Amino acid sequence: MRVNGRSMRTIWTEPGEAGVFIIDQTQLPHRFLTRRLHSVEDAAEAILSMQVRGAPLIGATAAYGMALAAASDPGESALAAAAGRLVGTRPTAVNLKWAVTRVIEQLSRLPAEDRAKAAWALAADIAEEDIALNRAMGEHGVRLIEAIAAQKQAGRPVNILTHCNAGWLATVDRGTATASIYEACERGLAVHVYVDETRPRNQGASLTAWELGQEGVPHTVIPDNTGGHLMQHGLVDIVIVGTDRTTAAGDVCNKIGTYLKALAAKDNGVPFYVAAPSPSIDFSLSDGIAEIPIEERSSAEVTHMTGETAAGEIETVRITPEGSPVANYGFDVTPARLITGLITERGVIAANESALAAAFPERVIG
Amino acid sequence: MRVNGRSMRTIWTEPGEAGVFIIDQTQLPHRFLTRRLHSVEDAAEAILSMQVRGAPLIGATAAYGMALAAASDPGESALAAAAGRLVGTRPTAVNLKWAVTRVIEQLSRLPAEDRAKAAWALAADIAEEDIALNRAMGEHGVRLIEAIAAQKQAGRPVNILTHCNAGWLATVDRGTATASIYEACERGLAVHVYVDETRPRNQGASLTAWELGQEGVPHTVIPDNTGGHLMQHGLVDIVIVGTDRTTAAGDVCNKIGTYLKALAAKDNGVPFYVAAPSPSIDFSLSDGIAEIPIEERSSAEVTHMTGETAAGEIETVRITPEGSPVANYGFDVTPARLITGLITERGVIAANESALAAAFPERVIG
Repeated sequence: MRVNGRSMRTIWTEPGEAGVFIIDQTQLPHRFLTRRLHSVEDAAEAILSMQVRGAPLIGATAAYGMALAAASDPGESALAAAAGRLVGTRPTAVNLKWAVTRVIEQLSRLPAEDRAKAAWALAADIAEEDIALNRAMGEHGVRLIEAIAAQKQAGRPVNILTHCNAGWLATVDRGTATASIYEACERGLAVHVYVDETRPRNQGASLTAWELGQEGVPHTVIPDNTGGHLMQHGLVDIVIVGTDRTTAAGDVCNKIGTYLKALAAKDNGVPFYVAAPSPSIDFSLSDGIAEIPIEERSSAEVTHMTGETAAGEIETVRITPEGSPVANYGFDVTPARLITGLITERGVIAANESALAAAFPERVIG
Repeated sequence: MRVNGRSMRTIWTEPGEAGVFIIDQTQLPHRFLTRRLHSVEDAAEAILSMQVRGAPLIGATAAYGMALAAASDPGESALAAAAGRLVGTRPTAVNLKWAVTRVIEQLSRLPAEDRAKAAWALAADIAEEDIALNRAMGEHGVRLIEAIAAQKQAGRPVNILTHCNAGWLATVDRGTATASIYEACERGLAVHVYVDETRPRNQGASLTAWELGQEGVPHTVIPDNTGGHLMQHGLVDIVIVGTDRTTAAGDVCNKIGTYLKALAAKDNGVPFYVAAPSPSIDFSLSDGIAEIPIEERSSAEVTHMTGETAAGEIETVRITPEGSPVANYGFDVTPARLITGLITERGVIAANESALAAAFPERVIG
């Protein structure tokens, strides 16, 4: 997608340059900065500090992290240590483990001297595959938007609500939830996106709003509290969110607060779709609420807020009283019964076990 | 309630001192500052800038504002102008209009020279009545908490979730939703309160957390996105919120996001109560979603956040991209069907037309 009018991805290598390049997403929307990762430790730190975030981009970053590890020491124990370091950074994201396992399995079949080159090629493949998945999801999901547009008065935009950032910044390119939106814009459909702020890390206000702005997509940032009111008043035509982990039964673990929007959509007859690329689907799980571990994150994400002062400085301020404890759960689980459909790379399907099994028969366990 | 161990109210006069005193709530939780209002314009500004907020406290402040007006000019046109200025500050709060109308009606029956003294007495009465209402609601509502406590293992706290600030800072004293909580604490019950941050103005994080902390009530601040997840996991025993306006049918207009918590409570079988003192009930309305005008507030409340820097300065930072539009609806409407009961000063009643009419027969219209 575009940044200041220039096409780019969220993770890339440069010819003749060592390492891997990323956008430091913790600095957005105020500063656009890129960073070079030199080692697997750099990659782990980039994931841990959320310079890169979003399940698909975490997966790609982990794959490139394994390539950096293999370039430094292709021995089995070094690779195992690198894999352990990367997988330990974010317990909820299924893509992370998936990407690392895939690299380890492939490299283990090769002699040590061939592993670095193979790892670089595999990381590049994983990045390309992510873009292909997103493009395919966009081509399926755009039909939902086209169908709503066909019912609207000419020129009236389709109002889409999204939560967190399941945008191109969360992937290698195009995004998961946003793939359908960018596809709609490229086809000339009028859309308008309500962007949930997404406390406590504000990925909606700071990342989704920024990337939609860079692409020229009309949008409005709203507090997370607002979506229900908008739906009660017919101001939302469709909800499209991403997923960090999808169960075999179609339960969706996504950014905390997703469940509340799904409830509001159900209560108001608004279709609620989840862009769920197959790497996010964990066929070993069935009951999302009981089985998916929910990451608890630092209290500072709730007690403090970072932004830009009138003087143009980046500053962090405390917003809660000293001494008031906080809780910071990263994700919640939206039960399949609240989900109208899953937008996958193989089509839009129902959020249930049989539809998932029919779409991805090769992934079904047991 | 207590501030730094000292008993106080949110609005008061001092013997031998001109004017009316308030707490400047825009400075909390970082600074505890009081302010003197000298005129009706000061009172209107205090309401408009949200130095005082919360439906009951707005009502009391408006009554004191009318007293300040009558002290300055008790003529009918001056009083009418003062009333208009005050009522225009916040369109959603029904208590505001109720208090001003009550003062105007009473003063109009008196000769001009008696009006100032009568207005001061009436404002003091309105303040005392608010405290009596809150105390009565607390005595009814505490039984709900006692009943839950009786089902719990000894020593395990009753977990209460609240949204925004329906605390003593929103009233003259004790609060509406918090009245039951403070009553429970005074009776020695173990309680723990989950405090919704309540974006965009953060009244939960900045006011409710602060007042609970000052009273020594165990609490945890959570992002607004979190309540659904907590309820899915059995971590919330009861939700108690306030109301800015309650219809004759029991629909509740309260801080934006209340509706989402009511949906989550319903979905998880968690009882959802609204502390609804009778001045908040508007018997002229039946369909809350269709009939209650929802105040749209300044975009700066969403785009910017104020807090305290590490250096101890109060600073405001921008958290959204330059050029991204925002929407800022102040309230939403929770339909009566999602409300387990209303905690009123006359008892806990069902949220429906017949129960409201039976509890407040003298208020029923037509």
